[in-house]
Amino acid sequence: MTETNSDTDQENLTSPLQQITFLLRKYKLVEGLVNLQESPDLSLSESTVLKQNLTELTDYLNQLHPADIAFVLEALPLEDRLLIWSLVKAELDGEVLLETSDSVRATLITDMASQELVAATEFLNTDEIADLAPDLPQEVIEDVFRSLPVEEREQLRAAMSYPEGSVGALMDFNVITVREDVRLEVVLRYLRRLDAMPDHTDQLFVVDRDEHLKGVLLINQLLVNDPDIQVAEVMTSEIIRLHPGDVAQQAANAFERYDLVSASVVDEYDKLLGRVTVNTVIDFIRTKAENEVLNLAGLSAEEDLFAPILKSVKNRWIWLAINLVTAFIASRVIGFFEESIEKLVALAALMPIIAGIGGNSGNQTITMIVRALALDQINIDSAWKLIFKEIGVSAVNGLIWGSLVGLLTFIIYQSYSLGLVMGVAMVLNLLLAAMLGVLIPLTLRKFGHDPAIGSSVMITAVTDSGGFFIFLGLATIFLL
Amino acid sequence: MTETNSDTDQENLTSPLQQITFLLRKYKLVEGLVNLQESPDLSLSESTVLKQNLTELTDYLNQLHPADIAFVLEALPLEDRLLIWSLVKAELDGEVLLETSDSVRATLITDMASQELVAATEFLNTDEIADLAPDLPQEVIEDVFRSLPVEEREQLRAAMSYPEGSVGALMDFNVITVREDVRLEVVLRYLRRLDAMPDHTDQLFVVDRDEHLKGVLLINQLLVNDPDIQVAEVMTSEIIRLHPGDVAQQAANAFERYDLVSASVVDEYDKLLGRVTVNTVIDFIRTKAENEVLNLAGLSAEEDLFAPILKSVKNRWIWLAINLVTAFIASRVIGFFEESIEKLVALAALMPIIAGIGGNSGNQTITMIVRALALDQINIDSAWKLIFKEIGVSAVNGLIWGSLVGLLTFIIYQSYSLGLVMGVAMVLNLLLAAMLGVLIPLTLRKFGHDPAIGSSVMITAVTDSGGFFIFLGLATIFLL
Repeated sequence: MTETNSDTDQENLTSPLQQITFLLRKYKLVEGLVNLQESPDLSLSESTVLKQNLTELTDYLNQLHPADIAFVLEALPLEDRLLIWSLVKAELDGEVLLETSDSVRATLITDMASQELVAATEFLNTDEIADLAPDLPQEVIEDVFRSLPVEEREQLRAAMSYPEGSVGALMDFNVITVREDVRLEVVLRYLRRLDAMPDHTDQLFVVDRDEHLKGVLLINQLLVNDPDIQVAEVMTSEIIRLHPGDVAQQAANAFERYDLVSASVVDEYDKLLGRVTVNTVIDFIRTKAENEVLNLAGLSAEEDLFAPILKSVKNRWIWLAINLVTAFIASRVIGFFEESIEKLVALAALMPIIAGIGGNSGNQTITMIVRALALDQINIDSAWKLIFKEIGVSAVNGLIWGSLVGLLTFIIYQSYSLGLVMGVAMVLNLLLAAMLGVLIPLTLRKFGHDPAIGSSVMITAVTDSGGFFIFLGLATIFLL
Repeated sequence: MTETNSDTDQENLTSPLQQITFLLRKYKLVEGLVNLQESPDLSLSESTVLKQNLTELTDYLNQLHPADIAFVLEALPLEDRLLIWSLVKAELDGEVLLETSDSVRATLITDMASQELVAATEFLNTDEIADLAPDLPQEVIEDVFRSLPVEEREQLRAAMSYPEGSVGALMDFNVITVREDVRLEVVLRYLRRLDAMPDHTDQLFVVDRDEHLKGVLLINQLLVNDPDIQVAEVMTSEIIRLHPGDVAQQAANAFERYDLVSASVVDEYDKLLGRVTVNTVIDFIRTKAENEVLNLAGLSAEEDLFAPILKSVKNRWIWLAINLVTAFIASRVIGFFEESIEKLVALAALMPIIAGIGGNSGNQTITMIVRALALDQINIDSAWKLIFKEIGVSAVNGLIWGSLVGLLTFIIYQSYSLGLVMGVAMVLNLLLAAMLGVLIPLTLRKFGHDPAIGSSVMITAVTDSGGFFIFLGLATIFLL
């Protein structure tokens, strides 16, 4: 698929991961042979081969993009990962650390000496250092602070002060500013004096003497217009202005909706603080989407694929614990009806069907509502409409699946009344699932909680215990 | 949060949706009063007020960004949605349709006459028309084809030929090409003759006489370098080249990893076909992430929030049907042990705990593996490591939760042996969940299926039926 023109003189393996794995295996094979001899002295030829293999691996590794190196590190088991990490050259360390996931980053940082970490930050911008900061040991951060010039120190302090999930945390300081009363020609000459422009510079920021943002000069405009006209004539003043305290998700929505490459960040007095760029936003979107899927499965955080067992256990225990509690509650509901089950043991076999389908239907409703809430598409008016709609869907589903389940029950157990109880219980549990499928996320939201977290556990708990209660209750009343 | 400088003379409501809802309610209120009178003639003042309200609503609506209009339409119930849609001016129709979700787009298109639809496409590029094409009636597409100049007709045909999920489907044709033997000065003059450059132009494509891609000239390079030097001296030739048949996800990975704004698309002879831009990639990532969450909940497609009940039922039935089958299988497993349950009714109350926790643990494993597979981070070597790791995690979890559950069972039922069976069944079901949590997605992948779809249903089916079987089987052997 994606390819670059670079010739690497290697076998044409398709991905960096495969290539690294191949070179690593080659290196370890020879190393293994050498170790087999149990002699401390290597023969000259062996030592040469070993060195050659290592050089080949190191050379291939260090011509990779930092993001590719990060990817390879994430896909390797810990031992191999640390070996490869030790071969990455120091200039790349910082960028690779930026690209790795939190859990893998931790394994890499643990393996580095303080001075190596300080050195790694030398190649990074202040906003990038701020991204790493939460994972760095305190003394490293202090060393880094001391090593920075005053202005950057202030920037770093500012960047580190914004909480995760805020626009401030996505912001960088790589802005080029111009004045509105100069000609485009002057801007062009100014740019030509730079070695390079910051990545993702699709616009220059027009500010006044006090750094207040007046508008932006799109690079497109700069290029297609007559160099003799003034910035003020072609600049755009109706622009997106983000604030560092804004929720990052809102910035992401703006980027998605208005197809932005960069957007300005200003303080409450409209003073330009920095910008957010689309690459940061993509990372944010990906991480967020991933966390959503992980949360749905009850993994509390991104987990290193090769995390030690006890670490994984820790990452997963909360959900299992919650589930244990809800399962015991459901179990007690059943326990309450033990006498009925003793009399009609078919109930035991049938009850999980009612609970299971109710849970699934409820989760479908929840997913719809959580998504609409995330997009801010629900208000009081539409909430009522949605409750009625979901109840309608459940009623129809209940009639379809209730009849079918009732019929199957009748066929298996040859009891007309048992089939009827089964069908009615199904309808009622689906209605319960629909109502609470709307109400649970709306209530969580009302009280300021993220409806994406916990809704699914709650609806399943309700449809399990509720389903058992409805079914066993109806059976006790009408069948025994 | 995000704000523009535009003054709208309206009350300062925070979002377009709130504002439109407010104006719509105002309009409908007067309309409602008028209708109450049951007289066909409006008094002059009423008709004026009605007209004023409508104008106010229309004016506000049509100064919004098409993406905002699309958002509002999605959040409105069908009747209101169609009223608002009728007020959107014709020039915006096409762009708004592009921005809406498939399900909502269908409701809008159904409401439009053929000639309106043809007119809507006049303001769109060929790649954008291709995006809409699957939703347009056949005769509209034919009309659109006839209305296009030959070159664009070819582009449209090409664009429509790429399957969804391919790079070709993300591609647009808005490329600016230059030759490598000209000076930057010439390029600058050439650009100045354009009215505007295409959005997201961060690079110009350097091609030879036969349109073969030689490299790219970054706009950054164009701006910082001496206008007297030649394109060849500053162009980059190691670039990402996508192919129209590539999987879109791989392009998305490249954009995310290498922080791209645009990337070239070439055919097998390295001839430039078009480009992919970051805004399209963001839409792709968002849609994909959303579908993943929807699939997890068993919603087969994106669903209009206000879809008619029967349509929603249709969207949700497959999952419920599959679930019904697996639930009946589990039910039959229980049915097989009815005699045991009759003798020891506590089994009925306890068995859902074993099944439930097994299901959760299995889903945690599946989520980890599916994610790693999506990122291409698993090979044969690491697959074995992962199986052992997951079994290890389950063993530890089994010991912890199995002991706890066994203890609780002992406390509730005062039976030492019942507690022991409970604990052992928990360990065994968690081990089963771990093994199949790794094997199911790997097997699906091996046979060319998307492991994200269906893995979760399958593991739940296994841990339910398996859990019941293990627990009731152990109980039958050791307790009765």
